Amino acid sequence: MTSVSIIGAGGMARAIAGVAKNAGADLQVVSRDPTEARRVTTELGAGTPGTLGDPLTGEIVVLALPFSAATEVAGQQREALAGRIVVDITNPVNFATFDALVVPTDSSATAAIQEAAPEAKVVKAFSTTFAATLERGTLSGAPLAVLVAGDDDGARRAVIDLANAAGLRGVDAGNLKRARELEALGFLQMTLAASGGTTWDGGFALVGP
Amino acid sequence: MTSVSIIGAGGMARAIAGVAKNAGADLQVVSRDPTEARRVTTELGAGTPGTLGDPLTGEIVVLALPFSAATEVAGQQREALAGRIVVDITNPVNFATFDALVVPTDSSATAAIQEAAPEAKVVKAFSTTFAATLERGTLSGAPLAVLVAGDDDGARRAVIDLANAAGLRGVDAGNLKRARELEALGFLQMTLAASGGTTWDGGFALVGP
Repeated sequence: MTSVSIIGAGGMARAIAGVAKNAGADLQVVSRDPTEARRVTTELGAGTPGTLGDPLTGEIVVLALPFSAATEVAGQQREALAGRIVVDITNPVNFATFDALVVPTDSSATAAIQEAAPEAKVVKAFSTTFAATLERGTLSGAPLAVLVAGDDDGARRAVIDLANAAGLRGVDAGNLKRARELEALGFLQMTLAASGGTTWDGGFALVGP
Repeated sequence: MTSVSIIGAGGMARAIAGVAKNAGADLQVVSRDPTEARRVTTELGAGTPGTLGDPLTGEIVVLALPFSAATEVAGQQREALAGRIVVDITNPVNFATFDALVVPTDSSATAAIQEAAPEAKVVKAFSTTFAATLERGTLSGAPLAVLVAGDDDGARRAVIDLANAAGLRGVDAGNLKRARELEALGFLQMTLAASGGTTWDGGFALVGP
């Protein structure tokens, strides 16, 4: 199987680390605070903890950080990320207003991260799966759909395969421009969870063919 | 119960006419071609057919037309629509490229229709429910969610009530700005149906609380 480095140690980092573990991938979790990274690998019983700046071991690198931090780290780690598959999971919501995104309406967080790390193969994934939903791995009685968008076919395929190997349903959502729609979907899903239309361990289930 | 006028006689018009019938609403179906309107009411066994330009009888008027036609009709019928609840169901997809919407990225079809008929209370609804899914009324074993967005609280409430009365699940999706996210969701759902990630009688099911 593949190898996965996760940058971050929050709820989404932990959930995606669980996906990597379930897929049988080699797992590294790095964080600014190495104690936090160690907490994730200890709780999970899998993976090697590290500090941001440690050499990345993963073929797939997941930026499990809020949007502004993800862009900053992508720029700082630009050389380390060159040639790798980089997964952007962010929902760049304006949390001050909860009424818009902070990225330009004709762009996306994924495009911003691709710009910060131009030699990386950036894909959007895990942005429409709430942490609790992803930890459970099912939604509405079926394997949870993980929508994957990006311009590099091989990178998209690798993340779809990772999701499938973990018992989820990897779904090809098309090119990097579709990140815009995935971010809209993620934002909408958050507003609906906040207003009671769904729950923070629910969301949108993509009904399979 | 309320009264509903549907402008249009295609698949979505028929499906929404079925919703109005199931909700026990007074139903009028009008089309440029009155034969088409009559076909819908005859097949459904409910409703009064009419020609575009006939007086509208519905408190709720559904523009069940493609985006460009919906905008055109909203402008032409501006006076007739004043004060009424107008439902925009469109997904303004660029069908030449199937890679973007035709509305500006910082706007929406709903905003364009509101601009064409400024005295109407415009809401977005039924844009994320494929016709076949809507005709069935369930998705993933639960009543189908009908996401409703718009700035007029009463208008949003009336369309939510209509959906609920028909046995569907009306969901408040917030203000008119959310139409942008609903259009992104609708577009994404279409690309996923086209690529096999879902089916044209499937789509995204919003898991309820």
